[in-house]
Amino acid sequence: MLERLRRTLAEHTAAVAAGKVTLASYISVITGTGILLFLTLDTSDDSLAYHSIEGVIWLNIAYFVWEWAVRVRHAYQHRELRAYLLSGSGIVDCISSIAIPLAILAGVEPRTAFLLGVIWLMKIAPDIAGFQQLRRVLAQEREQLGSVLIIFSFVLYAASIIVHVLEREAQPATFGTIPGALWWAIVTLTTTGYGDAVPVTPLGRVIASGVMICGIGVLGLLVGVLATGYAAESRRTRFIKTWELVSRVPFFSELAHGAIVDVTNMLRRLELPARAIVVRKGAVGDCMYFIASGSVAVELPDRQIELDQGSFFGELALLGNTARSATVVTKTEATLLVLDLIDFRTLMARHPDLAQAIDTEARRRMKENQETGRTR
Amino acid sequence: MLERLRRTLAEHTAAVAAGKVTLASYISVITGTGILLFLTLDTSDDSLAYHSIEGVIWLNIAYFVWEWAVRVRHAYQHRELRAYLLSGSGIVDCISSIAIPLAILAGVEPRTAFLLGVIWLMKIAPDIAGFQQLRRVLAQEREQLGSVLIIFSFVLYAASIIVHVLEREAQPATFGTIPGALWWAIVTLTTTGYGDAVPVTPLGRVIASGVMICGIGVLGLLVGVLATGYAAESRRTRFIKTWELVSRVPFFSELAHGAIVDVTNMLRRLELPARAIVVRKGAVGDCMYFIASGSVAVELPDRQIELDQGSFFGELALLGNTARSATVVTKTEATLLVLDLIDFRTLMARHPDLAQAIDTEARRRMKENQETGRTR
Amino acid sequence: MLERLRRTLAEHTAAVAAGKVTLASYISVITGTGILLFLTLDTSDDSLAYHSIEGVIWLNIAYFVWEWAVRVRHAYQHRELRAYLLSGSGIVDCISSIAIPLAILAGVEPRTAFLLGVIWLMKIAPDIAGFQQLRRVLAQEREQLGSVLIIFSFVLYAASIIVHVLEREAQPATFGTIPGALWWAIVTLTTTGYGDAVPVTPLGRVIASGVMICGIGVLGLLVGVLATGYAAESRRTRFIKTWELVSRVPFFSELAHGAIVDVTNMLRRLELPARAIVVRKGAVGDCMYFIASGSVAVELPDRQIELDQGSFFGELALLGNTARSATVVTKTEATLLVLDLIDFRTLMARHPDLAQAIDTEARRRMKENQETGRTR
Amino acid sequence: MLERLRRTLAEHTAAVAAGKVTLASYISVITGTGILLFLTLDTSDDSLAYHSIEGVIWLNIAYFVWEWAVRVRHAYQHRELRAYLLSGSGIVDCISSIAIPLAILAGVEPRTAFLLGVIWLMKIAPDIAGFQQLRRVLAQEREQLGSVLIIFSFVLYAASIIVHVLEREAQPATFGTIPGALWWAIVTLTTTGYGDAVPVTPLGRVIASGVMICGIGVLGLLVGVLATGYAAESRRTRFIKTWELVSRVPFFSELAHGAIVDVTNMLRRLELPARAIVVRKGAVGDCMYFIASGSVAVELPDRQIELDQGSFFGELALLGNTARSATVVTKTEATLLVLDLIDFRTLMARHPDLAQAIDTEARRRMKENQETGRTR
Repeated sequence: MLERLRRTLAEHTAAVAAGKVTLASYISVITGTGILLFLTLDTSDDSLAYHSIEGVIWLNIAYFVWEWAVRVRHAYQHRELRAYLLSGSGIVDCISSIAIPLAILAGVEPRTAFLLGVIWLMKIAPDIAGFQQLRRVLAQEREQLGSVLIIFSFVLYAASIIVHVLEREAQPATFGTIPGALWWAIVTLTTTGYGDAVPVTPLGRVIASGVMICGIGVLGLLVGVLATGYAAESRRTRFIKTWELVSRVPFFSELAHGAIVDVTNMLRRLELPARAIVVRKGAVGDCMYFIASGSVAVELPDRQIELDQGSFFGELALLGNTARSATVVTKTEATLLVLDLIDFRTLMARHPDLAQAIDTEARRRMKENQETGRTR
Repeated sequence: MLERLRRTLAEHTAAVAAGKVTLASYISVITGTGILLFLTLDTSDDSLAYHSIEGVIWLNIAYFVWEWAVRVRHAYQHRELRAYLLSGSGIVDCISSIAIPLAILAGVEPRTAFLLGVIWLMKIAPDIAGFQQLRRVLAQEREQLGSVLIIFSFVLYAASIIVHVLEREAQPATFGTIPGALWWAIVTLTTTGYGDAVPVTPLGRVIASGVMICGIGVLGLLVGVLATGYAAESRRTRFIKTWELVSRVPFFSELAHGAIVDVTNMLRRLELPARAIVVRKGAVGDCMYFIASGSVAVELPDRQIELDQGSFFGELALLGNTARSATVVTKTEATLLVLDLIDFRTLMARHPDLAQAIDTEARRRMKENQETGRTR
Repeated sequence: MLERLRRTLAEHTAAVAAGKVTLASYISVITGTGILLFLTLDTSDDSLAYHSIEGVIWLNIAYFVWEWAVRVRHAYQHRELRAYLLSGSGIVDCISSIAIPLAILAGVEPRTAFLLGVIWLMKIAPDIAGFQQLRRVLAQEREQLGSVLIIFSFVLYAASIIVHVLEREAQPATFGTIPGALWWAIVTLTTTGYGDAVPVTPLGRVIASGVMICGIGVLGLLVGVLATGYAAESRRTRFIKTWELVSRVPFFSELAHGAIVDVTNMLRRLELPARAIVVRKGAVGDCMYFIASGSVAVELPDRQIELDQGSFFGELALLGNTARSATVVTKTEATLLVLDLIDFRTLMARHPDLAQAIDTEARRRMKENQETGRTR
Repeated sequence: MLERLRRTLAEHTAAVAAGKVTLASYISVITGTGILLFLTLDTSDDSLAYHSIEGVIWLNIAYFVWEWAVRVRHAYQHRELRAYLLSGSGIVDCISSIAIPLAILAGVEPRTAFLLGVIWLMKIAPDIAGFQQLRRVLAQEREQLGSVLIIFSFVLYAASIIVHVLEREAQPATFGTIPGALWWAIVTLTTTGYGDAVPVTPLGRVIASGVMICGIGVLGLLVGVLATGYAAESRRTRFIKTWELVSRVPFFSELAHGAIVDVTNMLRRLELPARAIVVRKGAVGDCMYFIASGSVAVELPDRQIELDQGSFFGELALLGNTARSATVVTKTEATLLVLDLIDFRTLMARHPDLAQAIDTEARRRMKENQETGRTR
């Protein structure tokens, strides 16, 4: 028992040293930042609630200090101390550990200092797939996003100076300074429209109308750039992940190179837990499945057939039988590759050999099913 | 007469037992939830209006209880009682029936209890095509939607803590707590901008500007993901529906497999009631039509030609005559497949045999028309 | 002179009778509706401004009555009176003519009755290209737009009932009735956010946050559907317009059918007035031009070459010379077809014969130019 | 030293004369317009801050007058004075120079006159890539943007007249005039929603709901048009830039024409400074690199290999080894062309000869590496 704990701890320490974002990191970042929400609700400094929050935060800090120490030691041993300390993650680890204690030492009230815990979010950000994808999209579309931001700034600045001149006498409090007018322009150009600053002179309103219409124009450009970039990036990520899986299906390995690329572009990954229903008997079928990993059970009326990695099923739906003839359930955690009807048809048109192979196998199974007396 | 009523009722009961969303369900859900709108307008508990509303609601509950009972009985007979009771629709049926009576028994004021009727919407939701499509899109894009939501949450949380620190002294009522600042951040990041909480300090406004710009960025990502997913899903749904219709047109059955896939991708379905004008004489034509079901009448000056399932018309427009030479009207409800000029040209380029077939038929008709003395 | 006026009038009457939207219609609709803007600014009924506005409106009504009369007479002569009176345009013509006089007769104050002039906009709407295109997009995407609207309504209704229950005690004035809560839900779901109704209870704000996020989700779906539909519709319209022009360029007529379709998809139309500069000497060139109608002048240092319909120019830019070697100016109004570098390269790869033809012609010209002593 | 300064000045003068936007222009426009921000914050006319701002602005004006003078002189010498003075840039140069002095002479208070400095932004606008791209998009999509704007105006005008009639009695201050109602309609249709004008009557709110839903519809159309146009324009610009670079890589020059077009469409440009890490040893690789300009160093354990323009690296990742086997760092500023895994696979399927060439080179290198004793 104690031995086991020690082993787990050693493994965890190794993972931390290697710079991985461990489950423990996730838990402590999420509880640590989540608890900040409650910090401001209760104003009494002596309540149990406040002391618990305080406790969680100090525990968090202790954990992050330990994490930092492990990494510093590992870097020192590998003679990468300087590189680690100056790297992005090194700086985040350092700030996560010392920001709150330093703030308190500097005389900041603890309640306020604890809010620095929001920095902890940066510990898990690099590990989240969405951020990595976003970073790549931003990197690839940086020229065009830059262009849109420049257009945005031009409209913003010109509008705020014009509206400042037009409105400063009517509303000196809100439009009397250019930064004030700029605030109005940002609120308007993003179509947020708080309503705290609103032009009242006729000319000011004409300019404001132009700004609002530009606002939806800028939105259109930004959406265009981001949507295009995100779609391309997703397609790329998906291809790489699917490509790896396709190689595990022997059925595809005999295909010509061109056909494999086509197939990879068409397949969708589907990750399922154990005992999930993939196909329900009688449901309308519009896709077939290849098993990239794990195994599934086909529940025939009289027996159960088990299919393993590399097999396929559901092909009858694509060959004319639109109602599924049996329920299929995953036996283990499984990764399936899904081929939709539309893509199947396209594939058959382009690569008749592939179609032939599926057709032969399907006919064999159908015959087998009929011999065992099953009718749909 | 009575016999007929009994038969209709039996059919309806069978449909209900099979778990279908019947017309009666639709009607009672729509009237039931629609009437809630008026529940709050009239505050007198004794008015005729209130009693009518009450009546409709109790009638609705009675109907839903009956529906539930039919399904429970059917499930019991088929030994699926437990499965039904724990299934999504079983739970919805149960809550729809007992929520309001239970609430009233528990002492809730009837007027308030009746508002639970909004739950009835869940009875028809699974039957609506849009929801099914949306669910598939959400399922397929869940990774990417998840990424966008995580980015959204990060920006939200970081922004609300920073603005809380910057604004809490200036505006303790709105920014004094982190949940309060979080409310502001959501209102701003979605570009809704109620204006009930607005930063007033210069630094707070700078952060807020960043949040607004992130807001349109997040919007861009979300639109990109949803638009791409929806477009792919629509294309798939459309292909499946059209594929089925294409097989009914003998003209296409002689095509090579590759050509059929191409044609299916190009055709648009068009469902028309009886006596609808498909093509008006003299109008500019930019598409041709294939009849997948039903029949149409071509109104020539001297006679009327009837075309049935499998025929095509309007092809002259694609072969050079841009003005339609005759009016075509549907005789029965009809499903047509429309081929646009652009797709027709592409098709002719890729599959000359198809072009040949259409051309031959068109020339035959044109000659026939000329012989009967018709001029355009 | 008088003869000429009479002829113009007769032509105009014929156009009106044929149901066309004439320039006179446009002018009177635009002045008539435009003048309504000023109707409410000046409250004195005796001012010159008011009498002028009154005059313009009555003049407009007189014109529309005349237009209506001409069309009624024409329809009567062609025995289509009933069809015309019941058609969309017949009803609009009728209402445009009689709405204001009838309202005044019925005792409505003239100032208010005149506002009915906004109906006149419907006279020109069917003639505007944008509306026709929009109508086709709406018709083709109606199923999907319907789905989005149903999802929109579901979220709207459920949210307004929940928020009504949560907020009615805290804010009886705004959330006390369900229609009131529905108003809030629409303002929020469209991310408009007036701020006249804002939830204040913690739970109400959680629901509201969900509604705002759904709001940008619904926006994403709607944008996806409309953007896809509009893009497809534009592509179709553009193809049809370009196809017609391509047939006027002899150069393309010798191409194989497949190549023509490809070329048509790649060309962009460019309509230019007389004396417009198409290409400026020394500018970086990334496209070539075909003349579909009109003529242009190539300004060489020593002479001017005139090119007519069917010729092409600017091809040197695509064959390696990126700086334009001469300025080209339109001599008459001209319609050009533009082929971009990217499409030109693709075209050359797919149809080497086309590339050969352009290359030969380009070399001939280059040699000719060199012989006349011009260097780039 | 003095000689050098004189030479720099002469070069700069020549660049200004040629109409280029020099670095000096950028600096003076940005500082000049940036300083306007502070002009309104400090109200004392005698403070040091104000005098500094004043100084910067007059310095700016002096520079722009000089710039203008240089260009006028140059144009005069080349007998293009009239053309220059009437050209867009000539007018901007003139206004930039004389607007502020003229305004002060005309009696405008200096503080206000200085705000005319916002015009200076127009001096750099034509030089910014984003604006050029935007202008081309607007030019190409002008028909469709026009259609959307017309639909926008129709909805706007009709809604504002209807809401004016419905709300003028309830809220004479905001909806009492049609321009007032129009302001509300713009604020609503762009989903800005300030909340300064909000319908309160039930019917007014129904119309307003319609306007809000139209608002997100118009947004959808606008986004669709702009996103499509921007994507097409970016693709075109990218192709032209990449095409030029591809010709510098000897590896591609042996390809068939069709393959070059395909490759150009697939490659992404990547511009890197000196000493940037391109590939990190051990990282997962999903792309290969071609060097279009500059040079890189491959850091093998025992030595460093330098690769120059025309070479490629990282191809092992695409041939099965997903972990990078060496770190690659740029030695000079370099432009690389990146080929992603997905595109590489497609390319290999379509052009086996290219795949063969990469494969041969990769095998040669791998063997070489193994011989030098390196293991991954």
